[in-house]
Amino acid sequence: MKGFQKLVTIEEARQKLFNNLKIERRTVVVPLAEALNRVLAEDIVADEDLPRFDRSAVDGYAVRAEDTFGASQFKPKRFRLTHADEVKVGEAKQVWTGTPLPKGANAVLMLEHTKRVSDNEIEVLVAVAPGENVSKRGEDVAKGEVAVKAGTRLKPHHLGLIAALGKNQVRVYEKPKVAVLATGNELVEIGKTLGENQVYEVNRLVIASLCRELGAEPVDLGIARDDIEEIFGKIRLGLEKADVVVTTGGTSVGASDLVPAVINSIGKPGVVVHGVAMRPAMPTALAVINNKPVIVLSGNPVAAMFGFEVFAGPLILKMLGAEHESRPVLKAKLTRRISTALGRKTFVRVRVFQCNGEFYAEPISARGSGVLSTMTKANGYVVVPENREGLEEGETVLVHLFDAVEATGEHV
Amino acid sequence: MKGFQKLVTIEEARQKLFNNLKIERRTVVVPLAEALNRVLAEDIVADEDLPRFDRSAVDGYAVRAEDTFGASQFKPKRFRLTHADEVKVGEAKQVWTGTPLPKGANAVLMLEHTKRVSDNEIEVLVAVAPGENVSKRGEDVAKGEVAVKAGTRLKPHHLGLIAALGKNQVRVYEKPKVAVLATGNELVEIGKTLGENQVYEVNRLVIASLCRELGAEPVDLGIARDDIEEIFGKIRLGLEKADVVVTTGGTSVGASDLVPAVINSIGKPGVVVHGVAMRPAMPTALAVINNKPVIVLSGNPVAAMFGFEVFAGPLILKMLGAEHESRPVLKAKLTRRISTALGRKTFVRVRVFQCNGEFYAEPISARGSGVLSTMTKANGYVVVPENREGLEEGETVLVHLFDAVEATGEHV
Repeated sequence: MKGFQKLVTIEEARQKLFNNLKIERRTVVVPLAEALNRVLAEDIVADEDLPRFDRSAVDGYAVRAEDTFGASQFKPKRFRLTHADEVKVGEAKQVWTGTPLPKGANAVLMLEHTKRVSDNEIEVLVAVAPGENVSKRGEDVAKGEVAVKAGTRLKPHHLGLIAALGKNQVRVYEKPKVAVLATGNELVEIGKTLGENQVYEVNRLVIASLCRELGAEPVDLGIARDDIEEIFGKIRLGLEKADVVVTTGGTSVGASDLVPAVINSIGKPGVVVHGVAMRPAMPTALAVINNKPVIVLSGNPVAAMFGFEVFAGPLILKMLGAEHESRPVLKAKLTRRISTALGRKTFVRVRVFQCNGEFYAEPISARGSGVLSTMTKANGYVVVPENREGLEEGETVLVHLFDAVEATGEHV
Repeated sequence: MKGFQKLVTIEEARQKLFNNLKIERRTVVVPLAEALNRVLAEDIVADEDLPRFDRSAVDGYAVRAEDTFGASQFKPKRFRLTHADEVKVGEAKQVWTGTPLPKGANAVLMLEHTKRVSDNEIEVLVAVAPGENVSKRGEDVAKGEVAVKAGTRLKPHHLGLIAALGKNQVRVYEKPKVAVLATGNELVEIGKTLGENQVYEVNRLVIASLCRELGAEPVDLGIARDDIEEIFGKIRLGLEKADVVVTTGGTSVGASDLVPAVINSIGKPGVVVHGVAMRPAMPTALAVINNKPVIVLSGNPVAAMFGFEVFAGPLILKMLGAEHESRPVLKAKLTRRISTALGRKTFVRVRVFQCNGEFYAEPISARGSGVLSTMTKANGYVVVPENREGLEEGETVLVHLFDAVEATGEHV
């Protein structure tokens, strides 16, 4: 009967995993229209100035700024309207937001600072400085400038800027393929009928969904019985088909502790970490086989989620070239004390809410990490470090959000 | 030459839009495996207790709690191991996390609080109370309880809980279809060659991506010239094919102010708002035709994004049954003063960053709202109310995030 004799810290565990891995990223060119949420694998450099010409930033009249000097509400100046390509002394030409600035003009008067007095004339009620209300050529992005950096997760505004530069395809990192296997004799596919002492297998769906959220592509390996041959075959298949294998179940120090043993029989270096000083997810194991990582998570759904969060998530982000990413965070005040054990990093589920403009974090008590509904009651978690026995009521804590904080009032 | 005589507030504008609309939501049943990020249209009620039986919450030994009373490290008690279905006085049966609690047992000893002394005996080093380390039947979700509420955006942990209840499909709201049209003579499709004074059309891609982020389905209507017939035809098509039409361009008070006029010629009530007391996106118009909303955004990409944010976003969320949702927010300190004009709600782009555990928001200065790169430099925005002329340096502000805040240190 062996226990987890030597728990390693999360940092040591990650180090051991990454030290045994050489991450090779593949890239692929995709149409810009399909690039939302992909991670850019190249710097996007402007081939031309953006905008490509000086243009009006408002609706109004393009003028020579010097002609407006001295104009005021009490002493308006008159300008002749022109329809020619060039604006000459004492002339104004109507322009709209985005219109190229006509030759000769160097500023734009806003519509509301003028008064149309006849078909051919306007009165100008203010003076403008040269360059006023003009978007200068290259002011958005200058030719040769990096507009969007490699490693950026492409959001709508990035796509807009890349499109404005005229590029309709981009090079992004390929989605890592993550094979997902659940192990356990007690597991039944959702939708089937449960026998006595059986439970529905939920971890594959949860892990696959977490992979999709990060931008990875899950590959389903199904359920394996607690059987050496079956587990061996499925993990081998996963290693063939995917870049990462994630398993759930069979990591405890008990009788069904088959998965780490099977992994060690498949290839080198095998299991490099088994047992992490964290709670939940202490029995997590990390392995590498022929440069492919295998993340061995608890069968317990909540522990599996936190094991994924701490190990699989950062690994996938690294494979995606987006290792700088993390969940949204915010600061909130704890509504009550949290007690934790010394010597392990504890992940406490909390529900963040807003009250009178302040953010509060309410710990969600859970007797076991098997209680899935604690995850749906919470919208984030707080990390209690190894050297503390808890956190105090009223203490300001950093919350890592995995779901939305309900808005209290109106939309903006 | 008409100006925007009467600007309405954002709240009034929304009210006018919604007062002229009767939102009808359609629902559809989808497999649970395809339900990630969909919005639930039904309460998920547990048909059975979860867990369905008392089970061990840890790896260890199931016992009768009363038999352990008095046991301690200094005065261990001996228990006989049993392999029978029932645990009798003085007996212990090995169990794993999730194992159903054997008959007769009412508590579980953690492995580390026991010592195996022979094949048939263990020493128990602590006393446990009845119920200790046991997940009680129904403690996660009791039969008849609502596990996940209608209106919930389904995240991985919700899918896990629904799966644990044995449901493999759910009823969700249909994705609203949003037809997207860009108007303007100067616009060219990305990837084509630009003529003089032409620019690439970027708004359709940005709007379509924003729709996808919310869970709506964009329908592309292409580019229309500044031509009444063409705009008329495309908006009509959009109203046939989609639940919402979003247009960009042609909303200024200038010569190409065609879109609102065309809309009024299509049907009733037509344009209900034109001109909003906000900056950017002041020239936004809102219309309804035969109970279908038309959101008329500026052609200016940044203004289009903010007009979408304030009007199209909340509308789509309402159609999705998720009107309580909003962007992630956090509080940060302004790194410098922001000046704004009285009388309009001003949306100031900021870059939030972390420094020594504090969040700071750095205003991104922009001369015109046409400067797209200000959106990629920012990761959120701050809203300055109508009755303020700005915000002070060092002031704590609420930031609405549209992109990630870069993590400073390690992953958790």
